[in-house]
Amino acid sequence: MTESGGLRPAVDAETRARVALSRLSEPGDEQLGEAVQRLGAVATLEALRDGRLGGTRERHYRTRLGQVDVDLDLEVAGRAGIRLLLPGDDEWPAQLDDLGPAMPLLLWVDGDGDLAALTRRAVAVVGARACTAYGEHVAAELAAGLGDRGWTVVSGGAFGIDAAAHRGALAVDASTVAVLACGVDVAYPSAHDRLLAHIRSSGAVVSELPPGARPTRGRFLDRNRVIAALARGTVVVEAAVRSGAKNTAGHAESLSRPVMAVPGPVTSAMSAGCHELIRVAGAALVTDAPDVVDIVGDLLTDASPERRGERRPHDDLDAVTLRVLDALPLKRWVAPDGVGRAAGLDAPTTLRSLGTLAACGLAVTRDGAWRRAPAAPRATASS
Amino acid sequence: MTESGGLRPAVDAETRARVALSRLSEPGDEQLGEAVQRLGAVATLEALRDGRLGGTRERHYRTRLGQVDVDLDLEVAGRAGIRLLLPGDDEWPAQLDDLGPAMPLLLWVDGDGDLAALTRRAVAVVGARACTAYGEHVAAELAAGLGDRGWTVVSGGAFGIDAAAHRGALAVDASTVAVLACGVDVAYPSAHDRLLAHIRSSGAVVSELPPGARPTRGRFLDRNRVIAALARGTVVVEAAVRSGAKNTAGHAESLSRPVMAVPGPVTSAMSAGCHELIRVAGAALVTDAPDVVDIVGDLLTDASPERRGERRPHDDLDAVTLRVLDALPLKRWVAPDGVGRAAGLDAPTTLRSLGTLAACGLAVTRDGAWRRAPAAPRATASS
Repeated sequence: MTESGGLRPAVDAETRARVALSRLSEPGDEQLGEAVQRLGAVATLEALRDGRLGGTRERHYRTRLGQVDVDLDLEVAGRAGIRLLLPGDDEWPAQLDDLGPAMPLLLWVDGDGDLAALTRRAVAVVGARACTAYGEHVAAELAAGLGDRGWTVVSGGAFGIDAAAHRGALAVDASTVAVLACGVDVAYPSAHDRLLAHIRSSGAVVSELPPGARPTRGRFLDRNRVIAALARGTVVVEAAVRSGAKNTAGHAESLSRPVMAVPGPVTSAMSAGCHELIRVAGAALVTDAPDVVDIVGDLLTDASPERRGERRPHDDLDAVTLRVLDALPLKRWVAPDGVGRAAGLDAPTTLRSLGTLAACGLAVTRDGAWRRAPAAPRATASS
Repeated sequence: MTESGGLRPAVDAETRARVALSRLSEPGDEQLGEAVQRLGAVATLEALRDGRLGGTRERHYRTRLGQVDVDLDLEVAGRAGIRLLLPGDDEWPAQLDDLGPAMPLLLWVDGDGDLAALTRRAVAVVGARACTAYGEHVAAELAAGLGDRGWTVVSGGAFGIDAAAHRGALAVDASTVAVLACGVDVAYPSAHDRLLAHIRSSGAVVSELPPGARPTRGRFLDRNRVIAALARGTVVVEAAVRSGAKNTAGHAESLSRPVMAVPGPVTSAMSAGCHELIRVAGAALVTDAPDVVDIVGDLLTDASPERRGERRPHDDLDAVTLRVLDALPLKRWVAPDGVGRAAGLDAPTTLRSLGTLAACGLAVTRDGAWRRAPAAPRATASS
C-alpha cells in the first residue's frame, strides 16, 4: 500500500484518504459514509486499516488494502485528463449531498463541461437496455426536446434507452452527462467508445469508481442513485417489470425527486414497467419534453406560455440582462467580451448577466463561450 | 296528435305520456326531467302542449306535437319485438336514477337479456371511431377479459373501439349491451346490422329514442351519459384529444364512477386523449381486464387472488350455494331444475342459490338457463 508520495505534495491528506477509501470500498456504503462524515476520511481510513471501523463489509474491504495506490490513481487520471472532484469543490454538484451518508466519496470526471453548471438543470432519462424501436425513438425525441429547452440529460451510457437519450441530446448540440458503473477511462460497453467520446466533448463522463475499475451488477445499481441525485427528476422511457431503470426511479423517489414514466403499448413488455410505475407507484405520466419541464421546471422560467398566460421566461429580468440576452446569438458560440461589445456593456456587467441568464436556462456555456439557449425567445421579439 | 286509442288499454296514461314526451324532447333535458319528476309525465305533457311548461326548448318541442303518435310507436315496437322499460320496472337498471333529472324518460330495449341483470356488473368500454389496429386489438382483448370474468361490456355500437369491444365480449360468449343514439330498430351504422343482431341475441340493444329516430350529433353526446350511468366505470381505449369518448368519461366522472384509460404509444394521436385523461384528469391507467376489475369490482368477489392472499370468490358462500356452484357446468346452459337435480336440491333452494351466485358474478343466466361464469373456479377445486 503506497499512500505517501512526494510526487503530488499539493494533494492533501483528506483527498488522498478519500481516493484510497474509494478503491477499498463499494459505492454507496452508508456505514462507511457515516464514518467519513463523523471522523473525516483520514481517520476512517486508519480505523479501517487497523480493523477498528466495524461494519459488515470491513473484512472484505481490508482484503483490498494491497491494491491501494493513490499516487498511481492520481497519475493515471492526470495523464488521461480525468479530474477529481470532492464534496465542497466549486464543480461538485451540491444536490449529491441529498444522498446523505450514501453520497459519493469523490467523483472522477472526464469532459469539457463544468459538472455543477451542467447539472444545475438536469433530467435523468433512463430505461431498458433491450428497448424497442419505439422506446429508442421516444428517448431520443425527449432528450432532444429537453436539450432544446436548456436542460442537461443525465443517463447511464448503457445500450438501449440510455444511449438513445445521450444521442438525442447530442443531436441538438445540448449537454449530456453519463454516469458510469466503472472507471471513466473504461470503455464499457466497448461499442460505446465513440458515444462516450462525444459525451465528453459536450458534457461529462462521471464515475465515483477509480480509473480502471470494472463494472459489476452491484455497481450498476449503486450508480443509479448518483443518476437520480444529479437530476431534478427521473424519466423512465421503457422498462420491463423488473429492471434497473425502476431501481433508478426508486432512488429518485427516496430523494423526493419526481419520478416520471413514458407510456407505451400495453402489448409491449418493455412498457409494462412504466405502466406499473404510473399505476402503482404514482409516477407521473409524461409524453414529451414539455410534460417533463412542467414537472421539474421552475415556475417562473419554465412554465409553458399557454399554461401561464402571457408570461415569458425573461419577464422578470432587468433591462441590462435583457440587452445581453438580445446580444447572444442562437447558433454560434461567442466569448463574453464579444457579447459585451454587442450589448455595449463592460466585462463584469456582461459576465454577471450571463450568469443570470444561465441560471434561468436562457443561455448556455461551453469552453468559456456562450450562446442563447435554443428555446429562449429574444426579449425584443415578444415585447 | 293521436294520443288516446282503444288498441292498448293496458298501457297507462303515465306510460303514454312518457312515450309522447320522448318523441317531443331531446334526451337528457334536465328542465323537462325536473318537471316530470315534480308533476308526473301526464301533467308535464299537458303543460307543454298548452305552452305553460317554460324552459328554453319548449317552443321547439311544441313544433313536434304533430309528430306524436303513441299508438304507432307502441305498435311498431311491439311488431319488432322491442319492449318499453320505465323507471321502477323490474328490468329498469336502477343505476340510471343516478342521472337525476337527466335520467332517461324510458328505454326501448331489443334483446334477449334482462337489462337490469345484464348491467348489474357492467363496464363501459369506449373509444375512437377512427381507431388504430392497436386500439382495436386492445379493446377486444379487454372486453374478452371482462366477459371471462362475468362482466358485461357496455358500449355505443359505433365503428372502431365500440365495435371491437362488443366483438371481444361476443367472442367469449359474454354479454354485451349497445346503447344507441337512434331508435333500436335503426341500423346505424348500417354496416353494423349483423353486429347489432349478434348483440341482441346475447345481451341487449338499448335506446331512449323512439323507434325510427335518427342519430344526430347532439344525440350521440346525450347517449354517452346513459353508457356512463349503466356501467360501474368507463374505460377509454383510444381517443384523440377532442373526442366523444372523453365526453363519456366526463359523464362517468360527474356520476362519481371511475374513469380509466388505456395508454398507448406517445407517438399516436389516438392515444393522446387517453394520456391526457391520465395526466390531467386523474383517470386511472389500466392495461388489462384485471386492472379494470381491481377498480370497479367488489372487494370480496373480484380482488385478484395474488393481491389478497388465498381468498377465493366463493370463500363466503354457504355450503348449499357451493353445491349449486359445483353442479353448474361451464360450457353448457342448464335449466334450473337440471341444476337442482345435479345438486340434489329442491327448486326454491336451487333458484335462491343461483341468484346468490349471479350476484357474486359466479354464475351467468340467459333465456332462463344457467352456467358457471367462465372465471369462477369450482369450489371443490380450491378447497
